[in-house]
Amino acid sequence: MHMRIATRHGRSVLISPDSTSLVDVGEASRGRFGPAPRSVYDAWAEFVEWAGHASIDFAADGIPLILEELGAPSPDPRQVFAIGLNYRDHADESGLDYPTSPPTFTKFAGSFAGPVGELVLPAATVDWEAELVVVVGRRAERVTAAGAWSYVAGLTVGQDYSERALQLAGPAPQFSLGKSFPGFAPQGPWLVTLDEIADPDDLSIECRVNGEVMQSSSTKQLIFSVPQLVERLSAVLPLMPGDVVFTGTPAGIGGARKPARFLREGDVVETTISGIGDLRQLCVDATRRENDR
Amino acid sequence: MHMRIATRHGRSVLISPDSTSLVDVGEASRGRFGPAPRSVYDAWAEFVEWAGHASIDFAADGIPLILEELGAPSPDPRQVFAIGLNYRDHADESGLDYPTSPPTFTKFAGSFAGPVGELVLPAATVDWEAELVVVVGRRAERVTAAGAWSYVAGLTVGQDYSERALQLAGPAPQFSLGKSFPGFAPQGPWLVTLDEIADPDDLSIECRVNGEVMQSSSTKQLIFSVPQLVERLSAVLPLMPGDVVFTGTPAGIGGARKPARFLREGDVVETTISGIGDLRQLCVDATRRENDR
Repeated sequence: MHMRIATRHGRSVLISPDSTSLVDVGEASRGRFGPAPRSVYDAWAEFVEWAGHASIDFAADGIPLILEELGAPSPDPRQVFAIGLNYRDHADESGLDYPTSPPTFTKFAGSFAGPVGELVLPAATVDWEAELVVVVGRRAERVTAAGAWSYVAGLTVGQDYSERALQLAGPAPQFSLGKSFPGFAPQGPWLVTLDEIADPDDLSIECRVNGEVMQSSSTKQLIFSVPQLVERLSAVLPLMPGDVVFTGTPAGIGGARKPARFLREGDVVETTISGIGDLRQLCVDATRRENDR
Repeated sequence: MHMRIATRHGRSVLISPDSTSLVDVGEASRGRFGPAPRSVYDAWAEFVEWAGHASIDFAADGIPLILEELGAPSPDPRQVFAIGLNYRDHADESGLDYPTSPPTFTKFAGSFAGPVGELVLPAATVDWEAELVVVVGRRAERVTAAGAWSYVAGLTVGQDYSERALQLAGPAPQFSLGKSFPGFAPQGPWLVTLDEIADPDDLSIECRVNGEVMQSSSTKQLIFSVPQLVERLSAVLPLMPGDVVFTGTPAGIGGARKPARFLREGDVVETTISGIGDLRQLCVDATRRENDR
């Protein structure tokens, strides 16, 4: 069953197989599912069953897909988990020991954005972090890694943009706020279900700035794999349908380069995960943005 | 206008002036507000106006208030902010410098609970943290401290229960997960609006374990006051109606005592803020709880 789900103007949409058009889930299902994305995830198993058998005529009923109109696939989650130091090469470049439990912060929902658009830079130390993002498909409580993939609705591409000065402000740095400026959590362009993915534990992930490859790795380098994260998080508290997990970033962030390289006005950041899709942000200076108002 | 709002079985309720009965907001307003608490906060100004003029006959229409039936006043927030090291005496007992920006983590919504009930202890190092909790009443974006109280719907009592081993697991300790076991964020018993409070910047706050006073302070000891927190957080990202802010805890936590004192089965934890109300949890061992299933 080939299915890609996204959101447009806050409503769930299905994407055509050739990724050129979309249909509204609420309309196509005659109100059985959606339009609110949370309600689709809350009924995920039934929704997947319906979507697999629905005869949707994208040619007749679809409207053109415009990437700038899409939002995050799960834009209103109850919980957003984000994992730090989860690739060995990134822990090395950060000069930190490998964690024995996943360092878990959040990206506040006000930072969520769709796959393509502008990134307003609030400071001179904004950095990139390409990440695989997981959306939960059913309540997960104390599940084991062995069965954990069955709790995942699908995968999407994310960026964990990070304002390093605020992220690392002492005396006990908590990452969440410095990673939550508006637009700092673009996701998409759509959620891909696992049946489309040959090996979800080995996805190539890349980040380019102005075409230059800055990060290039595979999710097989994760210290805590997706199933292990589901096990570890669900051992503490229940994961809920629609919950979002940012799984961590590989080596190649700007702050670890010599010399350090942070985002500047005009930079174009592209993030790709094989078999899922691409994000693209154009960086805009906050001061200039203020003057435009 | 005397108004106290709470939730019962996921629906917004108004509490009688003598705190002995309640009415359902959805029924009393004939569907204009609620029943979902988020929708009440989304229409907060109109709701307060309505509640101030509604003639509610608690004697005729109210049902008995049972504290064990109440949930958190804002149980489904878009964002939950929690502040660390925000009382000078607590920073001192933790051996850490005073922060120059508020260390901000989250308590994941799966940790939310009502004001009275059991606290299941997942480990031998669970600690108490009495906290003033703020609920946001309207969207706040880049507001100044001078006008910040007008963005607050009201205040309630919270506990930021913390499993210290997981909270402080290194190499870069992120507090959020260790503070988010189920039941670790009890709140209530109700939201009190500001017109009821003589000086919201000077509220006495106390935590007792088995009747022994462990924490006793005033919110005037906050390093970042409530208005300053609203200014600092809203400078980064918009605060939304219904958002919850745990404002930090004063001195007297168990982990800083000599010898350290953590919660054990049978302990009763009471948390009081003057003019708002009380929380009460009975501690239950997780192992025993498992065996009961």
